[in-house]
Amino acid sequence: MNILIIGAAGMLGRKLVQALIARGTMHGRPINRLVLADIFAPERPDFAGDVETIAADLSLPGTAERLVASRPDLICHLAAIVSGEAEADFEKGYRVNLDGTRALFDAIRLEGQKSAYCPKVVFTSSIVVFGEPLPEVISDDQCLTPLTSYGTQKAIGELLLADYSRRGFLDGIGIRLPTISIRPGKPNKAASGFFSSILREPLIGEEAVLPVADTVRHWFASPRAAVAFIVHAAELDTAQLGSRRTLTMPGLAATVGDQIEALRRVAGDDATKLIRREANTAVSDIIAGWPQSFDPQRAEALGFKAEKSFDDIIRVHIEDELENTLPIRERA
Amino acid sequence: MNILIIGAAGMLGRKLVQALIARGTMHGRPINRLVLADIFAPERPDFAGDVETIAADLSLPGTAERLVASRPDLICHLAAIVSGEAEADFEKGYRVNLDGTRALFDAIRLEGQKSAYCPKVVFTSSIVVFGEPLPEVISDDQCLTPLTSYGTQKAIGELLLADYSRRGFLDGIGIRLPTISIRPGKPNKAASGFFSSILREPLIGEEAVLPVADTVRHWFASPRAAVAFIVHAAELDTAQLGSRRTLTMPGLAATVGDQIEALRRVAGDDATKLIRREANTAVSDIIAGWPQSFDPQRAEALGFKAEKSFDDIIRVHIEDELENTLPIRERA
Repeated sequence: MNILIIGAAGMLGRKLVQALIARGTMHGRPINRLVLADIFAPERPDFAGDVETIAADLSLPGTAERLVASRPDLICHLAAIVSGEAEADFEKGYRVNLDGTRALFDAIRLEGQKSAYCPKVVFTSSIVVFGEPLPEVISDDQCLTPLTSYGTQKAIGELLLADYSRRGFLDGIGIRLPTISIRPGKPNKAASGFFSSILREPLIGEEAVLPVADTVRHWFASPRAAVAFIVHAAELDTAQLGSRRTLTMPGLAATVGDQIEALRRVAGDDATKLIRREANTAVSDIIAGWPQSFDPQRAEALGFKAEKSFDDIIRVHIEDELENTLPIRERA
Repeated sequence: MNILIIGAAGMLGRKLVQALIARGTMHGRPINRLVLADIFAPERPDFAGDVETIAADLSLPGTAERLVASRPDLICHLAAIVSGEAEADFEKGYRVNLDGTRALFDAIRLEGQKSAYCPKVVFTSSIVVFGEPLPEVISDDQCLTPLTSYGTQKAIGELLLADYSRRGFLDGIGIRLPTISIRPGKPNKAASGFFSSILREPLIGEEAVLPVADTVRHWFASPRAAVAFIVHAAELDTAQLGSRRTLTMPGLAATVGDQIEALRRVAGDDATKLIRREANTAVSDIIAGWPQSFDPQRAEALGFKAEKSFDDIIRVHIEDELENTLPIRERA
């Protein structure tokens, strides 16, 4: 099995590569080739099969054709300019998130004109495709009314995925990821960064800034759950999707206060004291338009699973990122 | 006031030009310049002000910039490859309906970078942006799940219109037109053609083919109503739209049987006898996925109005297309 991952150097991409190598198979077939592409060449993983790492900008002419030429059986398209940057740089956001995605889908279509080819394509979308009017709990039939350029580009990607799939050019499945928490490493340009940093920094004994009220409610899954979504999507029989190719993923609805209480239970008062409240109306205003909670019945019926408590999300972080230790406790 | 109409040679475009000339003003300002563009040069209308007619393919590099260079105050973008053709020619549909629309919006954005410019843009979308799951009566919050490439392209146009408007690059309003009946002239490649021909042909004493069952229910407005939608949209204060820039237009829910009974009332049994039933499963299958009825509260609250009976729709056709005569009666 030949697997292409676009966006392989990103946080989810790297974890997905590790998960695939750990599994060794997909659909019961051995994974014998990984093609890892990103804007910077991804790190070469320790893998017994073929690995190719490629530094490539999907939005430049010829790149998509080159990536698809080896006819991967599975293509995971995770690459995107994140929300904050797509808002700050209008042209770059559309070029990468819209033109890049369309170039990929078209390269697959044109490859299929040479001889039969219809790869499975997993496309990561986002819950920010939803905007006004937002009910407190959002159903699978919610209309797409994005309030950012990033959300617009993801919504367009979903529409293209459905049409290219309907036409038989590719076998697509889109998954709308919850906000990922706890995102490891350094903050990126996403406005949602604090949802991770208020837990991640205190766990290692460092201060974090909370720019919004404790009552802010949002929708979360761990990086481990997100990778499991991608793998499950890759294995799913898409005949079960009908014409609606994109699913809202399960997650956990939690307030910032819920996050902080979970942190207290797992790591104690010393940890929660490291959260410094510093109101930032620019961030609050962006977050105000975001979804709070979902009822993702379709995805749940198809076997997608997320964490049920923020304690679990924090424990996943401790296991996967902190070698199962609690640095803040060890310092004390 | 300088008005650009793209798609000015089409059925609605020509009627819109006539309606604007008859009005003479828009927002109380005199219309002194009309720029009429289409893939073939539109006919030159009888107009006291400036008229420019342009044969131009919006999807070719430079065309959109050229059209926008004179900084029209109002741009009506009606141009599109119709549903049947966009389904038959995938690349052409995307090139014209997606790339052409985006090229227009981007040309406006770039013109605004030279000096302040934010024209009103009326974009005609379609009710075929809606697909499964379709309730019997569709609300304003229905999700966009198109089942055709044309519907996908229109849905993407709506998303772009909203994002470019939110960014302040243009002042957009999208209107989802009902199926237009009675469409004058010759059939085009749309699968919906019979909804017009089963009335249009009998009214002039000619035979028409009905490919679907009498129970098929759909959503209609006359060409006159559609032109009035565009004019009303052009004059509407878009502050009333909030972030949701596209509205489903009012219309009339009617079955094919309702159409035929209205024809009988207006033109008699001789007319209805000219409808020849000839089942066509290819057409029935396409139509089966189409919306049947809407509850377009937002548009109605904003003053958009459609016909209330098919008798009215037939009378509009007789007045506007048949010089207020009934050819089938005159032959008898």
